[in-house]
Amino acid sequence: MFVADVIGTLVASIKDPALEGIKLLLVQPLDEALAPVGSPLVATDTIGIGVGERAFCVLGREAALALPDTFAPVDAAIVGIVDRVDVAAKS
Amino acid sequence: MFVADVIGTLVASIKDPALEGIKLLLVQPLDEALAPVGSPLVATDTIGIGVGERAFCVLGREAALALPDTFAPVDAAIVGIVDRVDVAAKS
Amino acid sequence: MFVADVIGTLVASIKDPALEGIKLLLVQPLDEALAPVGSPLVATDTIGIGVGERAFCVLGREAALALPDTFAPVDAAIVGIVDRVDVAAKS
Amino acid sequence: MFVADVIGTLVASIKDPALEGIKLLLVQPLDEALAPVGSPLVATDTIGIGVGERAFCVLGREAALALPDTFAPVDAAIVGIVDRVDVAAKS
Amino acid sequence: MFVADVIGTLVASIKDPALEGIKLLLVQPLDEALAPVGSPLVATDTIGIGVGERAFCVLGREAALALPDTFAPVDAAIVGIVDRVDVAAKS
Repeated sequence: MFVADVIGTLVASIKDPALEGIKLLLVQPLDEALAPVGSPLVATDTIGIGVGERAFCVLGREAALALPDTFAPVDAAIVGIVDRVDVAAKS
Repeated sequence: MFVADVIGTLVASIKDPALEGIKLLLVQPLDEALAPVGSPLVATDTIGIGVGERAFCVLGREAALALPDTFAPVDAAIVGIVDRVDVAAKS
Repeated sequence: MFVADVIGTLVASIKDPALEGIKLLLVQPLDEALAPVGSPLVATDTIGIGVGERAFCVLGREAALALPDTFAPVDAAIVGIVDRVDVAAKS
Repeated sequence: MFVADVIGTLVASIKDPALEGIKLLLVQPLDEALAPVGSPLVATDTIGIGVGERAFCVLGREAALALPDTFAPVDAAIVGIVDRVDVAAKS
Repeated sequence: MFVADVIGTLVASIKDPALEGIKLLLVQPLDEALAPVGSPLVATDTIGIGVGERAFCVLGREAALALPDTFAPVDAAIVGIVDRVDVAAKS
């Protein structure tokens, strides 16, 4: 999984039937200093997170396991809201 | 999932039987500024999108879940037409 | 899926039993200008393509879906011979 | 799988029900010289490793196979504590 | 799949039960000139390869298909010993 900031929303009226009613958000992955790294992804939200909050996300086939219909064609899902990340000082 | 522009078509007369009748398109992934990023991919289209439109796509095993035959050997599928992407201003 | 040129062959006498009799080819992924991009991969061939031809390939678990034994440990398969790629002019 | 150092912890009170009670750690992947490479990931821990220890981790759908609930939406799991890595001298 | 040199071994006494008795090796992926590319990975060996030999490896969920217990949490497996790689001259 990876830590990411929720940075936007995506609207798609024509889509796969299994995606009807599923909220889609744009998330920006973060590195260990919590700085942006790589390109944003489109991820599903089933936990009720908002733009500006920090999420952790899952990729791949297992993303659909967060949805009511686990056979939906999705590959990225927000699975938690991050309260705190503690990184040990480098020794 | 990722946002991508549909930039071309691919014709293949000899192919895996499970791909017969499936439309194949070339899609260019986009970054958060909706600028091209990385290499284009070949993706299936089952929603009826055209060249020049903006799609969001799914990768991996779950791509086949968008097809009539979910055991088809595909790893990228267009699953929606993007109407609008809203990215929050950086704070 | 991605477009790739078939650039070589691989011979392996000792291998997983599920790979017996499966032809293995070296493929070089191409970008939208059909120029080489990234490192070549080893892919299975079940459609009868030759070195010098242009293929489109599938990655991941779904690659095995192109084989007679879908439980074979493979992650890249040639699933079609590319006749033509048409890329729209940038607007 | 890859070798990684456990560098931190992640706290998330709101998360997917299948992740309740699962310890989440931040791991930094290492290269062959055991130097950091790439961005840290969030991985589950079911073997009882601590911050500062060296792990090897698995990615993708198979990560959930390390959990009690193998249908949990996770994509990275710590599956062992590394005692020793021996790399042959380059010839 | 990809071609890689076996460059080292990994010892882990505490690990997931499904990995008991499975040999773990460090492999360095190679490019088409058979030069090292990217970071080494930890891969399982069920075919009996040694350090210094050249392997081809499979990634992802399908890696576990090379093991006796196909539900093991592994994502990279050596599936063959490479006897010869022939790359066509660029035209």
